[in-house]
Amino acid sequence: MKFTLILSFFLLAISFTALSQDKQNTAVAEKGLIKISVMYPFADGKTFNMEYYETKHMPMVAGFLGANLVKYTIEKGIASGIPNQPLPYMAIGTFYVKSLSNYQAAIAPNRDAIRADFANYTNIAPVILVSEVVK
Amino acid sequence: MKFTLILSFFLLAISFTALSQDKQNTAVAEKGLIKISVMYPFADGKTFNMEYYETKHMPMVAGFLGANLVKYTIEKGIASGIPNQPLPYMAIGTFYVKSLSNYQAAIAPNRDAIRADFANYTNIAPVILVSEVVK
Repeated sequence: MKFTLILSFFLLAISFTALSQDKQNTAVAEKGLIKISVMYPFADGKTFNMEYYETKHMPMVAGFLGANLVKYTIEKGIASGIPNQPLPYMAIGTFYVKSLSNYQAAIAPNRDAIRADFANYTNIAPVILVSEVVK
Repeated sequence: MKFTLILSFFLLAISFTALSQDKQNTAVAEKGLIKISVMYPFADGKTFNMEYYETKHMPMVAGFLGANLVKYTIEKGIASGIPNQPLPYMAIGTFYVKSLSNYQAAIAPNRDAIRADFANYTNIAPVILVSEVVK
């Protein structure tokens, strides 16, 4: 009886701890982080292989960033949100990192490998934005 | 004894259910959603009041979207990620929604109110991208 009661409270304590940590991870995941957005402008004749980007290029770059990388995202451009305007970007890949200087230090020795891989999925020169996540 | 044992398993079941749902919510939060990105290009003479945007404008627009809105984000542009290039965007606000048509239906009757509020925080005409979250 006593053992089972102790076990109950123990399991309950573990569960609440796990839950609160999980919620905390979700809540603090982005605010205050540095976000690097690699944006591929649309234009006539421009191509983008999303399958290669998702399965090869982004995992490769993410692998260079180590524990500084909190998460990375990929989105596929569908349309302009303004009627009769051209699609602004064919694709955007982003990296959420804790430290911009650590990001730059991790990318620098791999810049040639990253650029050489561009030709495997696109003929677009990307626009790159460094921003701070406000919310 | 029997009661405590049943209580143990009951608590354990609740905890695991809560945990697995929480993880699932986190994992499926973005993939497959529609993302509307409102991007404010930087240029000489352009201004942007982040405090007003964060506390007034974005909550107002988010309020129009109801249950279709999964989350919204705000980021502040810091620099270009390419040396010697100008800052691409001063700010970006995004809405992650389940349905593009529901988003459009919710925004349409409020478009004048949204546009009228622009002058309260910026003199920039935004670029708007509709995209699909791939990862």
